[in-house]
Amino acid sequence: MYRSHNCGELQMKQSGTKVTLAGWVQKVRDKGFMIWVDLRDRYGLTQLIFDEERTSKVIMDKAKTLGREFVIQVTGTVIERASKNPNLPTGDIEILVSELNILNEAKLPPFTIEDETDGGEELRMQYRYLDIRRNPVKESLIFRHKVTQEVRNYLSNQDFIEVETPYLIKSTPEGARDFVVPSRMNEGQFYALPQSPQTFKQLLMVGGMDKYFQIVKCFRDEDLRADRQPEFTQIDCEMAFVEQEDILNVFEGLTRHLLKEINGVSVDKFPRMLFDDAMRLYGNDKPDIRFGMKFGELNEVAQHKDFNVFNSAELVVGIAVPGAASYTRKEIDKLIDWVKRPQVGALGMVYVKCNEDGTFKSSVDKFYDQDDLAKWAEVTGAKKGDLICVLSGDTNKVRTQLSALRMELAERLGLRKPDEFAPLWVIDFPLLELDEETGHYHAMHHPFTSPKPGQIELLDTDPGAVKANAYDLVLNGNEIGGGSIRIHDKETQAIMFKHLGFTEEEAKAQFGFLMDAFEYGAPPHGGLAFGLDRLVAILGGQETIRDFIAFPKNNSGRDVMIDAPAPIDDDQLKELSLKLNLKS
Amino acid sequence: MYRSHNCGELQMKQSGTKVTLAGWVQKVRDKGFMIWVDLRDRYGLTQLIFDEERTSKVIMDKAKTLGREFVIQVTGTVIERASKNPNLPTGDIEILVSELNILNEAKLPPFTIEDETDGGEELRMQYRYLDIRRNPVKESLIFRHKVTQEVRNYLSNQDFIEVETPYLIKSTPEGARDFVVPSRMNEGQFYALPQSPQTFKQLLMVGGMDKYFQIVKCFRDEDLRADRQPEFTQIDCEMAFVEQEDILNVFEGLTRHLLKEINGVSVDKFPRMLFDDAMRLYGNDKPDIRFGMKFGELNEVAQHKDFNVFNSAELVVGIAVPGAASYTRKEIDKLIDWVKRPQVGALGMVYVKCNEDGTFKSSVDKFYDQDDLAKWAEVTGAKKGDLICVLSGDTNKVRTQLSALRMELAERLGLRKPDEFAPLWVIDFPLLELDEETGHYHAMHHPFTSPKPGQIELLDTDPGAVKANAYDLVLNGNEIGGGSIRIHDKETQAIMFKHLGFTEEEAKAQFGFLMDAFEYGAPPHGGLAFGLDRLVAILGGQETIRDFIAFPKNNSGRDVMIDAPAPIDDDQLKELSLKLNLKS
Repeated sequence: MYRSHNCGELQMKQSGTKVTLAGWVQKVRDKGFMIWVDLRDRYGLTQLIFDEERTSKVIMDKAKTLGREFVIQVTGTVIERASKNPNLPTGDIEILVSELNILNEAKLPPFTIEDETDGGEELRMQYRYLDIRRNPVKESLIFRHKVTQEVRNYLSNQDFIEVETPYLIKSTPEGARDFVVPSRMNEGQFYALPQSPQTFKQLLMVGGMDKYFQIVKCFRDEDLRADRQPEFTQIDCEMAFVEQEDILNVFEGLTRHLLKEINGVSVDKFPRMLFDDAMRLYGNDKPDIRFGMKFGELNEVAQHKDFNVFNSAELVVGIAVPGAASYTRKEIDKLIDWVKRPQVGALGMVYVKCNEDGTFKSSVDKFYDQDDLAKWAEVTGAKKGDLICVLSGDTNKVRTQLSALRMELAERLGLRKPDEFAPLWVIDFPLLELDEETGHYHAMHHPFTSPKPGQIELLDTDPGAVKANAYDLVLNGNEIGGGSIRIHDKETQAIMFKHLGFTEEEAKAQFGFLMDAFEYGAPPHGGLAFGLDRLVAILGGQETIRDFIAFPKNNSGRDVMIDAPAPIDDDQLKELSLKLNLKS
Repeated sequence: MYRSHNCGELQMKQSGTKVTLAGWVQKVRDKGFMIWVDLRDRYGLTQLIFDEERTSKVIMDKAKTLGREFVIQVTGTVIERASKNPNLPTGDIEILVSELNILNEAKLPPFTIEDETDGGEELRMQYRYLDIRRNPVKESLIFRHKVTQEVRNYLSNQDFIEVETPYLIKSTPEGARDFVVPSRMNEGQFYALPQSPQTFKQLLMVGGMDKYFQIVKCFRDEDLRADRQPEFTQIDCEMAFVEQEDILNVFEGLTRHLLKEINGVSVDKFPRMLFDDAMRLYGNDKPDIRFGMKFGELNEVAQHKDFNVFNSAELVVGIAVPGAASYTRKEIDKLIDWVKRPQVGALGMVYVKCNEDGTFKSSVDKFYDQDDLAKWAEVTGAKKGDLICVLSGDTNKVRTQLSALRMELAERLGLRKPDEFAPLWVIDFPLLELDEETGHYHAMHHPFTSPKPGQIELLDTDPGAVKANAYDLVLNGNEIGGGSIRIHDKETQAIMFKHLGFTEEEAKAQFGFLMDAFEYGAPPHGGLAFGLDRLVAILGGQETIRDFIAFPKNNSGRDVMIDAPAPIDDDQLKELSLKLNLKS
């Protein structure tokens, strides 16, 4: 053992004790006759002291060679500090060093190993092993471990069994793109990496393993957006002999447990919102309900005058921004510019100031009188001092635009508090989603989701209206989990595949094993999967996931530290019966 | 909720209670006026009764349609059984059914869902979801879950942090063959799936995360031997600021904890054996020490006569088989045939019967007298009634052959008791291993293993003699874990790469990031990885791992249930900038 204690535990009660510590040199202060060194390990910082009067010349000289991030081992005596540091758990003591052993030297690191570092994102990723020494990253990884331990212990105590499902599976063209793995032993054939263990967990239900979970890596070869990773981690869960209500209760219990144990926050029964209501009231299927600004639909009170922009719109909808009536013309113009940015895409914005004296001042005063505007205020719930922002256009687009504006304003107004937690179930999702480009319907959740009882006939007449037994768990405006009650009989599954455009042969080739399994006694079942990376980030009060992943990839899917992906040997290619077919 | 209770919990104390159960029909006994159904779920079996006098005709008729593996839900009253079954936890009661709901019908399964099934291996794998309904498989998966929970809780309580390392990494030609993953976004480039998280866990040590573990899938594209899987699971561990002694103690503690908690077996301090001794005494680096039959080297007492077979051999070595002096000539001939099988490869076997009257009878009586044979008995530890089996030849080969014979005989004699546990540390492995085909040395453990202090100079003069700080944990003749103290400075690592035949450029291209990391303050570190599949199997008293894996692959690396690997679309290939290059 290189140490008797760690760098985070020594206090006055160990005063006089001889101890051995090991760690990294955080900082050296050399006054010539006296040298202080901050020694750091995973557990904290401890101050070392070398002093001409009490330390041998050999050690004194050696101490003078120490540089930042050197790895050292010291033996010495715990003594009381002259000037204590109340901000440090070990701030009352220091170690008077009697032995110093340099275990490894260090080049000057390319960025400072401090909570606020001078290293940019790219540099930090290239030297991730140094970045992990920094408290914010280190603590995020430890936090992630704590969350997964809580999840595992909670679910195990509820009789869930963690079962490992395979990583080398079969490619299916539905959903996102698969990463594939050429098989050397089966010439010309490929495995695929799982986008999720969906079919396997359903087969476990058929196998009688009625409460399953797994914390598992999943893979999607998507064009990466910011804060997406090609490999990500799910808490994957499935239960048999359950209805939607059972699933919601179990995983609400898990989430409540995490909020309590990890964040010390008690949350009552989670509210539930219909998908249609979420879209109508928040323009979004994952509303942040930590704050208001609900949508008010204004068609009835805004389409009776000569304002053509509104009259020709499918939807006129507004929100009341609290206290924003005081915005200057310039500030409002900036807001209008913000909604007109291509990322948002609105053509313009109408606003109404709700003055403190009860009058209204709007950008459309020549079309609407005070009575009209009073009705707008009523519908949007605007109070004196609020600013009503109104967008109009096609329903889907304008909802998305207003939702973006609502979130942006909440951010600016400080309403998205990281230490406040507002979970929400969004339920009754549509079964199918229209792909506007191709005109085809595809599964909103996945092709194994069951339609609501009695709605299967609607598939022929009004497919977009069919609701599913599908639900999302939303936390602070982020989808942290989603799932559904599954189809468990071959006929319904065949009908679904047909409506999703699979021929019988295609369905059989890709999912034959599942259809077969449904013929041998499949129980009713359903489940849910949490996105662990995001869940952990949000519980940790962050919006970006990257620091909760030890070795993340960049937006091109590259690991810049190990420089992967990389070319492989011709021999390797040949063994795999492959040739490159480069476009350039 | 489809049920109020599960099928394993109802007893006389619930007599008179109305309950709802759901599960699978295990068996139907139809006496016409009375029908009994065994209902099964994950938790057990409960007997249902339908009876002309107490059950409605509608339900009686429906019950008559039930077949094996139908999924049903029943409501009824717990009543005392007429004839109790003391072998079943629910054997005192049955359910008088008042409601019967067929949730799903089932085709006749292709094999019986019983502990002893009539299904062969291939059929069971094809319908694995049915196989999992069988108790032996179901219980093995639940057992695996229990083991991993114990491992996680034990290590977490010791301040270990589970950190997820990436699956999409970089191919390195060292060691076994990598599975590779073409990158669509980085044309002509490939990720590799990790053979182990070795370099990442070392980087975590450089990052200060001084106690790491992970239960993680690893991948090796090897020609599969029986009971090998292309994807397998490791308990991967690493610690910083430790010496070999610390690692052995920590993971001996973990293993002792598992034996205690999982198997109820208390084991004292694990014995330690030098690699050289293991080879000399057991012909094997993973000796099963549940029984004796240690090797006795006979060169000194067998090479002084005219028996040329022995005189020309590098090694003459024997074991004393307890009580086997009574073997008939025919039985011994069979043993000789067994060692001459190509899988073992001995050219012959000499034997000595140690008779109860103190005399010896051997197959080489014309060369050796009673005094000679008495010395052999002394060296091999043979007692009256034992049979000495002697092989001779090249040291390495003959040790392997005699080790195979020793294990075979132990198996036949019932000495390999599955409920007896004999853990053992084998230490001081050689650093390098000579590849007899190429004449080159390669790393016995891996290229990051550190040589014993002071032995690095030997690398130039006698590379095969260099010992490493490397150790294996052996349980009942199986290697369940192995690890080493790592190199943590750039110079030693460079020397190692050179001796393993890497040019400086190759070393830099493949492991540059690790060499770089060693320059920024790498602490001394080391670790160990357990093979989880095998560990779980052995703790479960089994020698084969397949039933402890939910969805295993066959010996060609195929998943016969989902039929993977499989061809992929031309479009998919094109997107990946690849073309098939088939040999046939």
